[in-house]
Amino acid sequence: MKVVKFGGTSLASADQIKKVCDIILSDPKRRLIVVSAPGKRFDDDIKVTDLLIDLGEKYYQTKKAEEEFKRVIDRFDEIVKGLGLGEETINMVYEDLKGRLEGSYDSKEKFIDVMKAAGEDNNAKIIAQYLVSIGVDAIYINPKDAGMLLSEQCGNGRALPEAYDNLKKLSERKEIMIFPGFFGCSKNGDIVTFSRGGSDISGSILAAAVNAEVYENFTDVDSVFAADPKMVENPKPIPVFTYKEMRELAYSGFSVLHEETFEPVYRKKIPVCIKNTNNPTAPGTLITPERDSKGSTVIGIAGARGFCSIYVTKYMMNREIGFGRKILSIIEDEGLSYEHTPSGIDDISIILKQNQLDEEKERRVKERIIKELEVDDISIERDLALVMVVGEGMRETVGIAGRATTALAKAGVNIVMINQGSSEVSMMFGVQQDDNEKAVRALYDEFFK
Amino acid sequence: MKVVKFGGTSLASADQIKKVCDIILSDPKRRLIVVSAPGKRFDDDIKVTDLLIDLGEKYYQTKKAEEEFKRVIDRFDEIVKGLGLGEETINMVYEDLKGRLEGSYDSKEKFIDVMKAAGEDNNAKIIAQYLVSIGVDAIYINPKDAGMLLSEQCGNGRALPEAYDNLKKLSERKEIMIFPGFFGCSKNGDIVTFSRGGSDISGSILAAAVNAEVYENFTDVDSVFAADPKMVENPKPIPVFTYKEMRELAYSGFSVLHEETFEPVYRKKIPVCIKNTNNPTAPGTLITPERDSKGSTVIGIAGARGFCSIYVTKYMMNREIGFGRKILSIIEDEGLSYEHTPSGIDDISIILKQNQLDEEKERRVKERIIKELEVDDISIERDLALVMVVGEGMRETVGIAGRATTALAKAGVNIVMINQGSSEVSMMFGVQQDDNEKAVRALYDEFFK
Repeated sequence: MKVVKFGGTSLASADQIKKVCDIILSDPKRRLIVVSAPGKRFDDDIKVTDLLIDLGEKYYQTKKAEEEFKRVIDRFDEIVKGLGLGEETINMVYEDLKGRLEGSYDSKEKFIDVMKAAGEDNNAKIIAQYLVSIGVDAIYINPKDAGMLLSEQCGNGRALPEAYDNLKKLSERKEIMIFPGFFGCSKNGDIVTFSRGGSDISGSILAAAVNAEVYENFTDVDSVFAADPKMVENPKPIPVFTYKEMRELAYSGFSVLHEETFEPVYRKKIPVCIKNTNNPTAPGTLITPERDSKGSTVIGIAGARGFCSIYVTKYMMNREIGFGRKILSIIEDEGLSYEHTPSGIDDISIILKQNQLDEEKERRVKERIIKELEVDDISIERDLALVMVVGEGMRETVGIAGRATTALAKAGVNIVMINQGSSEVSMMFGVQQDDNEKAVRALYDEFFK
Repeated sequence: MKVVKFGGTSLASADQIKKVCDIILSDPKRRLIVVSAPGKRFDDDIKVTDLLIDLGEKYYQTKKAEEEFKRVIDRFDEIVKGLGLGEETINMVYEDLKGRLEGSYDSKEKFIDVMKAAGEDNNAKIIAQYLVSIGVDAIYINPKDAGMLLSEQCGNGRALPEAYDNLKKLSERKEIMIFPGFFGCSKNGDIVTFSRGGSDISGSILAAAVNAEVYENFTDVDSVFAADPKMVENPKPIPVFTYKEMRELAYSGFSVLHEETFEPVYRKKIPVCIKNTNNPTAPGTLITPERDSKGSTVIGIAGARGFCSIYVTKYMMNREIGFGRKILSIIEDEGLSYEHTPSGIDDISIILKQNQLDEEKERRVKERIIKELEVDDISIERDLALVMVVGEGMRETVGIAGRATTALAKAGVNIVMINQGSSEVSMMFGVQQDDNEKAVRALYDEFFK
């Protein structure tokens, strides 16, 4: 069985939904389909999920939101009509929304989660009805009935272990199942959504639960590229890469899929295929547990801005047992999450996202490190970017570091930090933030041109 | 005032001692002189300290060690005669050694410490007597009387804070003071030695205590070199380098001075000058708190063998708050001291000296990390070397990393790790141990030829 997920732009209109249904029907293995809410039809269109949030917010404050309500209904109405479905379908959507608005809730968060989930839920029902209307044995699956059990964190739900056991039973069904993404329900029966973009997570959980042969993720690009097209002109597509490579690239602002998406499929070693709804025969990009890395060592380049470095020196630091652990305890204790800790003999740098460190926090962290660790010096450097060169097998190849650092030098980029581990798939360079794009381009040119 | 320390080879014979005295008298600021025990006169000679250890061990076991006793006396006798001192001087040494052997001690360690200290102590007395004999206003200083107070760790004493206050008073004396290195005494009055090579530490403590203008350390080389002469032919001398550079180089097997030597002088920012007793007019190497790094970015190359890497992967590691701290706690808890922790998004390597990790310890560390941190994978790579490129100002120079990595690639050296911090004076490369010398040579050629 293949689990197939379609994103919002793939389902933004009746025409798009028809394309999606063609894609589903073109492969009998595509049986468990995860759908998003209708997305943007054109650049400055508004996603249905955003319309629903507006509706919820307005209604929560004023108990009245006719205009916002109408905007949501209009979007669905257009789709329902375009698919040739009858009045009863749009009435169903109308009643569903009304029911959600007028329900009673313990908290605003719970109410907003219920509203946000309406986009996927109604879209799934409409798509199932459309498939049935054209004679397909299709069925809408209610996440609550199917047992998509999540932790009780509104807007940031996590699948509970029993969810997998529950959802596994879906593999026994014979119909084409249309499953709304983005939400599940808590043990109390409340609707809970994932974090934004969470339909990808729904699909990943389902693929893991039914042990799918592949998790196909349809979006609006032909493939994942070796560099950000905003930084590099016409970057090369990546046909196959590994989970590890994907994680390293995703980290540096490489938007492949939603951050946590892959954990469930990764654990089950299920491959993921990124494909384009508007060009479904293109091979797309396959993400696999392993790949043959012969012949292609570097697979992608990415760069992310907004990091800072806390630099600490202390004479004889390397002979002080527990120094590293103690400094990380302070960092953790202050609620900071750090990225890397390159170190010398008598110094250590702690690299972290700088938006965590406001003036007050910076002052306190400095003070604590000085006082508790009796360091010689501490300074904080802001506005750094981390640039990654990623590829399995890089480590075995003499000269990659030389090529990368020489390319950066030629481009006039000063390397303030290098971090390469003992058997990693990436090499990381810290550079001044203003050099980020220049660095990415120089490295792309070196390894892909 | 200058504090001047002479090493064992500089004091191995009467002729050497006369040279040393000429050096002392050639500069009226050389007033506080720290002396070692007589060292080797020729390649397969035995140092007096080693003769004393043999004597102590034998006597402790058998209460008899005439032959060993005679060997020590003979060395001193040769020196005393060569300096034209009388019978009473060698009798003094004889009685001193006898007194040490026949004393009563709480433990073997205390006895051995007393024996070890005899080399420096008697040598200091002899040199003071010689200076007096040629009409110099010189005096032997007893470390106990002067207040060189150490912690009660036999063979690994540490100066107590009050030692500095006590020793400061020496700056008021008008004589040339001959101070035996390598030992002090505990608050109970017991003799305690520093770790091996500890005369350097004595000198450093004294220099800090009297706030010397410079700490001159006379040894048997003209200067410190930019690379180990055993690996690189005729390496260039380093005229000036900083404490930080020295620490980084010393770490990678660069034997400048004893490891802890510099802490006292570093704290007081007192410069250290390494000079050659056999070529005292050569400028030597000056180690300073700061230097003008313009024009010379790389100052030295060093490489050390015998490291291993514990490599740990866990999907979503970078999102797990406290992961780094937890793994370092396990390492610390197991009594291991680590060097560096290069990390990727989902992996971390812990680099440590591999002699700490026997089979049993390796098994337990692996087991604990797997169990307590639920990691995906752990592996240990042995036989690595850490190669350092060191120099203040390196960081500001575009292209150093490029030149270094390209030089390594050209030499066919695979880089398994790079660790460069955000404002450090060094760049570190992990390579296979067998590539250590090749890497040092390639880097030396790149930056010094």
